[in-house]
Order: sequence, then C-alpha cells, then structure tokens
Amino acid sequence: MHLYRTHLCADLRATHAGETVRLSGWIHSKRDHGGLLFIDLRDDSGLTQIVIPAESPLLANVEHLRVESVLTITGKVVLRDKETINPRLPTGEIEVQAQDITIQSAAAVLPFQVAGQEHYPEELRLKYRYLDLRREKLHHNILLRSKVIASLRHSMTEQGFVEFQTPILTASSPEGARDFLVPARLHPGKFYALPQAPQQFKQLAMIAGFDRYFQIAPCFRDEASRADRSPGEFYQLDFEMAFATQEDVFATLEPVLEKIFKEYGNNRTVSPTPFERIPYHTAMKVYGSDKPDLRNPLKLTNVTESFANSGFGLFAKIAASGGEIRAIPAPGAAAKPRSFFDKLNSWAREEGAGGLGYITFEEDGPKGPIAKNLEADRVEQIRTVCHLNTGDAVFFVGGKGDDMVKFSGLVRTKIAQELDLIEKNAFRFCWIVDFPMYERNEETGEIDFSHNPFSMPQGGLEALETLDPLQVKAYQYDIVCNGIELSSGAIRNHKPEIMVKAFEIAGYTQKDVEERFGGMFHAFSYGAPPHGGAAPGVDRIVMLLADEPNIREVILFPLNQQGEDLMMGAPAEVTPQRLKELFLALDLPKPKTTKSF
Amino acid sequence: MHLYRTHLCADLRATHAGETVRLSGWIHSKRDHGGLLFIDLRDDSGLTQIVIPAESPLLANVEHLRVESVLTITGKVVLRDKETINPRLPTGEIEVQAQDITIQSAAAVLPFQVAGQEHYPEELRLKYRYLDLRREKLHHNILLRSKVIASLRHSMTEQGFVEFQTPILTASSPEGARDFLVPARLHPGKFYALPQAPQQFKQLAMIAGFDRYFQIAPCFRDEASRADRSPGEFYQLDFEMAFATQEDVFATLEPVLEKIFKEYGNNRTVSPTPFERIPYHTAMKVYGSDKPDLRNPLKLTNVTESFANSGFGLFAKIAASGGEIRAIPAPGAAAKPRSFFDKLNSWAREEGAGGLGYITFEEDGPKGPIAKNLEADRVEQIRTVCHLNTGDAVFFVGGKGDDMVKFSGLVRTKIAQELDLIEKNAFRFCWIVDFPMYERNEETGEIDFSHNPFSMPQGGLEALETLDPLQVKAYQYDIVCNGIELSSGAIRNHKPEIMVKAFEIAGYTQKDVEERFGGMFHAFSYGAPPHGGAAPGVDRIVMLLADEPNIREVILFPLNQQGEDLMMGAPAEVTPQRLKELFLALDLPKPKTTKSF
Repeated sequence: MHLYRTHLCADLRATHAGETVRLSGWIHSKRDHGGLLFIDLRDDSGLTQIVIPAESPLLANVEHLRVESVLTITGKVVLRDKETINPRLPTGEIEVQAQDITIQSAAAVLPFQVAGQEHYPEELRLKYRYLDLRREKLHHNILLRSKVIASLRHSMTEQGFVEFQTPILTASSPEGARDFLVPARLHPGKFYALPQAPQQFKQLAMIAGFDRYFQIAPCFRDEASRADRSPGEFYQLDFEMAFATQEDVFATLEPVLEKIFKEYGNNRTVSPTPFERIPYHTAMKVYGSDKPDLRNPLKLTNVTESFANSGFGLFAKIAASGGEIRAIPAPGAAAKPRSFFDKLNSWAREEGAGGLGYITFEEDGPKGPIAKNLEADRVEQIRTVCHLNTGDAVFFVGGKGDDMVKFSGLVRTKIAQELDLIEKNAFRFCWIVDFPMYERNEETGEIDFSHNPFSMPQGGLEALETLDPLQVKAYQYDIVCNGIELSSGAIRNHKPEIMVKAFEIAGYTQKDVEERFGGMFHAFSYGAPPHGGAAPGVDRIVMLLADEPNIREVILFPLNQQGEDLMMGAPAEVTPQRLKELFLALDLPKPKTTKSF
Repeated sequence: MHLYRTHLCADLRATHAGETVRLSGWIHSKRDHGGLLFIDLRDDSGLTQIVIPAESPLLANVEHLRVESVLTITGKVVLRDKETINPRLPTGEIEVQAQDITIQSAAAVLPFQVAGQEHYPEELRLKYRYLDLRREKLHHNILLRSKVIASLRHSMTEQGFVEFQTPILTASSPEGARDFLVPARLHPGKFYALPQAPQQFKQLAMIAGFDRYFQIAPCFRDEASRADRSPGEFYQLDFEMAFATQEDVFATLEPVLEKIFKEYGNNRTVSPTPFERIPYHTAMKVYGSDKPDLRNPLKLTNVTESFANSGFGLFAKIAASGGEIRAIPAPGAAAKPRSFFDKLNSWAREEGAGGLGYITFEEDGPKGPIAKNLEADRVEQIRTVCHLNTGDAVFFVGGKGDDMVKFSGLVRTKIAQELDLIEKNAFRFCWIVDFPMYERNEETGEIDFSHNPFSMPQGGLEALETLDPLQVKAYQYDIVCNGIELSSGAIRNHKPEIMVKAFEIAGYTQKDVEERFGGMFHAFSYGAPPHGGAAPGVDRIVMLLADEPNIREVILFPLNQQGEDLMMGAPAEVTPQRLKELFLALDLPKPKTTKSF
C-alpha cells in the first residue's frame, strides 16, 4: 500500500464499500457526535468523511489536533446510512472508518479560517498566502488561471505559432513606463533592465525568419499599482506574425479569445467573431472612450448645432468658442424622481464638472433646467437626433478637447449603471483601429508618439512626408472587452527609412534612434519582413473570467499594493558586502526630523 | 489574393502547376543563367525556385538586390524540365515564373553569409543574432527547443500537473549561488532578488494544497558562465508533488524524459525505465563521480588490499597511511604501443597527479613498471578481481579523499575515450540516490549542508539527533544523463522541528532560520504535506538532443560569456536621474593608473 494514499479524497464512491483505502489530506472540519469523531479530510480533489469510532484508541491521538493539520488515514470504506447521505458531496454516499492514522503535520492556531466564506483583511491574507490559497474561491481562481494559460497555449500552437523564451535580463528600453534595473556585477556601473514587454525581441524573431512567435511572457514595469495592474510583474500572451496584415492578426486572435471566454466564461455570452472594428475617432465620438464597454447600449450624439446661438447661454457660448455639446440618452429616465437627477448632478461636480444638465421628455412636454431656456424646436431637434421618446431623458456635456470627451464617456457609463442598462453575463469585444500615429503633448505642445513608436504609419513614408503629423494614422489597434483594454497591437514598421522619419517627427535624430534602438534599427537593414501582432494581458483575461476586480486574486503569490511580498519579506535590505560587489552605495533620502521649539 | 502570400515557400508541388500564387520570403541565393535570373526564395517553411525570364521588365528591379532581401513574388507555378528537377527539395518539381515582384526590404552587405555552413566568430554571430538565427542549424536548434518545451508541458499536464507562474521579483535567498538584485524604487535602500529557482514557492504551493505543480521556470544566477551554463538566466522543468515518495518522483519524471529523448533524440538509444538507481557512495566507488557516464563500460575496483605491505613501495605506503588504490581496467590495451601509455602518463601529470602506473597482461606475463616490483600473486589477484584477461591492461590511482576519487573518475573517462569505448548514439540515464545530508567543509572544518538544506533527512528527526551528521543520508537525488547532471531533487522536509535541528547541525540558530527562511518555516506550522520534486534543466536537455556543447546554441537571444547582449547593448550605463530615483550612487573601482618612472 502506498505510504500516503491509494485514492484521492474525491475518488471514493458506494462501489468502493468494503475496500481498505488510504487517504492523505488536511482536516477541513471536525465534529464530535455522540463520542464518534467525524473529520472532513480535504485534498486538492475534494472531501471525504472519516469516522473514528468512540472506542477507538486512535481518538486520543487525533481529538486534540486543530483543523488544517495533515493526516494520513487508513481505513475501510463503508456505506452511510440512508439518512446521513450527503448529496452535495461526490463522496457523500460513503465514509471511511479509520483503522490507522499518521499525523504528518500538526497545525498551530490559524490566523484565519480556511473553511467558510468569511472576509479577512488583505494584508493578513497575503502574509499567510499559503492558507488563503487553500480557501475555495482563491484556489479555484489560481487553477482557472492555469487552465486559461494552457488553453491559450493550445490555441496558439494549433494555429502554427511556436513559443520562444525571450531574455529577461536585457537592455533598458524607453517604452513609456519605467524599467526595473539590475546591477551587472561583472560590468561596474552598468545595468541590465527587465523587459517591459518582449516587443523588440519578438520583432527580431520575425527578422530572424521565424514565421509565427508566441509566448506567455513575463513583463515588468516599475509603476504604481492599480486594481487591475500588479506592481512589478504581469503576464501577456505575446505574439507576432510575419507577412501578416492587420486583418490576419485579428483573424488569429479572435478565435483564441472566443474559445477562452466560451470555455471558461461560465456560460456568459461572447461577441460573435469577427468582432466589431471601431475607428478610434468614431469611438471617441460615439462612446467618449477608446475602450468602450459595448454591454452599455448608450451612444453619444453631437448636438452642438442645436445649442449654437440658442437661448441656453452656457452651451451657446461653448458652441461659439469652438467647443462641443454631447447628448447622452437616458431611456425611461423621465419618470425618475428629482433625487435621481440631483444625485447625478452631485456626482458630476465631484468629477470636476460644473454639473449635469438634462431634459426629461414627459407626457406634458420637455422639462428640466435646460428645457426652460432652450427654444422648443431645438429641444425637439435634440429629441429626434437622439432617437428619444416620451418617458426618456437626455443629459448634456459641453466643453472642449480631451476633458469633454473623457467626461462624456464617464457620463455614458454612469447613466447606464444608474439605469441598470449594462448587459449582464456577456463579454462584448471590439477592436479599436486607426489610432493616430502622433498626438500633441498638452504640456510641452510638441508632437509625441501617441502609442507604440514601432508601428507602421498608414500610407508609409509618403504619409509621414506629406501629411500633417496629427492626421497620420497608424496600423495600431486595441482589443477591448467590456470596457477593458486587453491588448494593444500593431503592424510594425519594418523599414529603416520610415523609422528615421517617424522618430524625426517626434523630435529624435537618426543618432538618437541608433543609440536607443540600434539593435532593431540595424536589423531592418538586413532583410526584414512585414510583421505585426498583439499581446493580450493574461491577468486581465483571468480577472474577467473569474469576475474579480482585484488582480491579486488571480495571481499565485502577488506583491501587495506597495510592491511588497509580505510572506517572503521582499524587498529587503542587503549586506554592505553585496552592494560593494555591485559597485553601488546607498544614497538614501535624509530622514525627516521633527523640529522642536 | 492575400497581400503577402497564398502559400508558404515549401507548399508547392507538381499538382499546383498552372496556378497563380504569391510567395514572400528572403532571397536565399541568386543565379544568373543565360540571361534568366533564378532566385531561391526562403521562408520559415523552406525554399521555392523563382525564375525571372530574360526579357522581363522585373529584372531591372531585382538583379541589383543582395541576398537576404525580402520579396513578395506573384507568378505562375510551372513544372520544371525533367533534367532540372531537384529531388532534394520538396518543391523541386516546380518553379514559379515571376509576374510581379514587390521589394519589402532591401538587404545591406551582410556581415556573414546566411546560406552555407561556414564558421564565423561567435561575437560576430551574437551581434547579428537575427542573421545567425536564419542559418539552418541554429534555426533548427531553436525550433527543437520549442518542441521540447511543448512536449515537456504536454507530458506533465497528462500526468495531472498544473502549471503556475511563481514570482520573479522576490526575496533574496541564500541557496548557494549569488542572486541578481533589483533596487526597489518605492522602498529606498531595499532590493528584490531574482529567484535562483522557485524552490520555496513550489514548496509553498504544496502547503497551499495544490497537489502537483510544474513550471517551465526562468531561474537566475549571478555566476560566471561555463559552456553548459548561461551567465544570467536559464530554464528548468520545475515540478513538485504532494504526498509523494522518492519513487513517485522517479516514476513521474522517467517517462517524461524517456519520451523527450525518444521523440527528439534522432533515433539514439534511450535507457529503458526504470532508470538504474545508484547510491551516492557506490557511484563514488565504482565510477569516481556522482555524475557517472554510463555509456562508459569501465568500472573501478578498490585494490588497496593487493598493494598493502607489497613490494610496490609507493602504493604500499598509501595503503599503510589509510589511503586507497583504485584499479581502472583498460580492455585490450596490452597491445598498445609504449607511446599510448606515455601519453596517458603525461596527461595525468598535467592533471596534477604524479603519473599513471599500469600493468599490461601480455602473452608472456604481466609487464610494466608496477609489475616489476609487485609480487606475482598480487598481480594475479588484481587481474582476477578486475576481471582482466591476457591482452588487457589496468591503470592505478592511489591517494586519499576527494582528490583521489575525482581523479579515478577522470582516468575512467580518459581511458574509455582513448580506447573508444564510449557507447555511441545512446542516452544513458541513472538516478544517484542517498546523498549525504552534510559534508565537512574542507576549508573551515565545519559541517555544511552538502546539497539542499530543505531536504528530508532519512530517518527524520531521530537520525539527526542520534547519528554522526556525516552519516545522515538525505532523500536527495540527482538524475544524470551521459555524465551530465540534469537535475537535483529531493523529498523535502516539511516539519518545523526537523528544519530547526537540521540547521542547528550546520551552525544556524532558530533565529537564523526564521530570519532567512521565515516564510517557509512558519508555513510548516499550519499543516504541511510531505512533498518532493525535481527540476531538470531545459537548456541542458536541448543541448544533449541537439548535440551542442555550447549552451548559447540552444538559446534564442543569449548573453555572451561576459554576460553581455551584443545586439541590444546590455548591460548599459543609466542616467544619474535613474540612479537618484533608486536612491543609489555608483561606487566604482578606481581606474588603474600606469606608473611612469
């Protein structure tokens, strides 16, 4: 008989009755019942009920043990009495009468309970992560993550992609975020950087003649954490294809995502492929966002015309000064009490807006602060262009530039939430395409790359040479699900002369390009294929599937929001000797002193 | 028609004749032949011959292009004349008559040729890695690596293992080698470390109740490079099993290795499973190594008795002072010329030995410097215990301790090589088991852990409390293939009291244990299952399969021996601003000055 087990805890059925078996696992719970001791023994597979008879000499060894102690139990499988069968448990028809028990590990008093659903503070859960991971939901999330990654790998391999490991100790690259640096002991004063993404390496793999690359790639950014972003490391399904158009990239990724979300989405609806493609400018106009949540049925309408030279002075002024007024429909909201509109108004003020004007279309005509001042034909015009009916309402956002656009998107979301219009149990995907290649930096007034500087401009070199840079679009796209950006991607530029020109427009000389991206720039001179790809975030996909708003709930051993591993004690101080080896000295901020008067 | 291709370059066959197709790829070679231009167009799949007729207007666009330029070619598939069919090429029955050509990328003068087998300096190849990767052998190695990793994953998943990603930014752990450190910007003066292996995390995953973990895990050691060790990062098939015995670990890994080596071993023989288990002490005695190459049929014999009080003074003295004399058989070597023995003697001196004594068993009796002085019955005794016959020879190594053992192993290898006895085209596996838990540090004289401090001592706490520490064995094992250690592994200790005692013997207090391994130490107190595993090196497996002695030949973008990425320019200096953000200052060695007199 095996030293630890003949079966897993979830294996036993009525057909095993009479067999002598051995099980190992944790004491999930213990119940004393008329002198008998009942133990629910748990392993990764599930639970089995163990019975220790009242007269058993084993009782003395076991009764003092705490839950979560680890036991190996040898005993006989017996059928339960009809009235004690537990139909909710796969092993509920049987129990095991203990004949021998080995204590593998006795548990101390637990900092929190493993069984049950009680909430505990996150810092405590992170410190004892190994206990938290035994709890049902987190355990399930981590196994789900593994399955998702295995399925992603399978889908990519099926499509002829080959997985490579790109370097983790590499060169610093100015890709937007801050790199983590690693001092190079053998090269005093020099540093490796951890990759923010394998962007340049995957492009170099294409230039090396590999046709279809993918990787479940660890990426590193020294950035502040957010709910959906781990401080430190995260994983993406990084892929790249040679001789591929934008549509090829879409046709590759769509079935992969569709499969994952159908397979592990708990029967939630998934957008049919091909996913909707929405040009960036349309998205900003219609949804006030380049990450529109398509579960939200509301669409924005530009109603500037209706307010130009109108009786509603505030918006007339905005229209006259080149601003825009957007209408956000609120179907069925006319019947809402005054408090509904007041609450939205307060919310808008908290968001930094002046307030949130609206019109309600009631049985006896349009109502509300704006309707009072706006000419009736203009109110009617708005009602028509926004496709509104009696019983509906409409809100307005007016202003200029990015702030107005962004706020109109927020209002769209807020109203849909308040009216409970967001589609339930659905994953709604879209591609945002035709991103601008450049944008004006609002602080410096200069032209910057708006996304990835390595993207191919639409129209190629000619577009760069002849168009206003702000008019140049890139073969740059995002895949968005339920308002969450899963990935950027692009058809890359593969021509050195376009790279030089593209960077020149953003204020870099050819020398800059050679110094900062020399490896790739030179590679373009030795025969580079057209290529493109994307890199959906694995953590975000699992968050969506597990319905977890906190990324730490889908990572095995995450850092906390301050970038600390509370279980292992990282980061930590190191000995002066270690620093000396690395030719480094600490240059710490002066401690703040308290002045005494 | 697709913008870039309707087929891959290896797709076309005689059955495609008459079709108009589009191909994209690199100019592998170009031949001008009676005014016609022939191009071998290459992509990841293979080659197709393109013909540009002498009268074609396309000729002018293409004839000046260098090899490795990238083209998209549209044309008609035509059958080749019988006499020009190339049977070595899958597409050798056809060629494509170009009707349209787009130049995707014109190549500059290459630093070395992609086509052909010429050797180039490694530094040049690393600088232009993307070109080197287009060359047949390296391209094949990297694809082989991908297949091997995919197959390893498949085998583990089939056995119920689940892949997890363990942290890369983690705590420093004193596991033998030196960690890479990563300054933590948000925690002035503190550092993360890159994991030398996910050892503690995989154990914590077991304590978290996961049953079978694996990972193709990136590991990092700040060590000098060797031919078989990359400076920086490497990958291992890291796995761990709960409620598992040593034999369970063996039974898990053996079929995985057998499958990989049969699948990708080019028909080389693979040891049948179960692989031989050799206790550490036996390996040292019989092979003079804990990494024996079992393709080598030679075995060592202890012949100290035969020399004790004998006429061969040197060895008699060694025997008298507690040393050991080992015999290494050399079957069939008696007929070798004197120069054979002289060469081995010189080699032994280069290795630091006094020389290499031997006896040859010739038709007319034993010969050689030792036979002259050693009594005939003792010579005959040696012949018998070493199973030697007329025509054979035997070499001797005498001395004490590790040096003698190690040298006896080297002689075993050397003689087998010289006599060409190493089995060809075979992968010979064995497990080395029963490693000692402790060893005496030869420098300090103190007791150290000989391998992993986290292993379970055989006999548990009782053994630690009652035995001479140097007699305690651990459930610690190595898997060896052809003399190369693929992995260490162990059944781990999972009991806090054993951990304290084990470290106490090696000179650590409980406080040391809590400070250095607190996460795991405390975890043992909350219910830890017995568990164990191993972690075969992926790079080494691929090296064996690809028959490459240099690890850089099986890594996509490796660092060079000095730990530099010559293509990307890593490591590199960083701006003072970056250092300031990290609260660090450089503390560089003073430049060496040349004294002038």
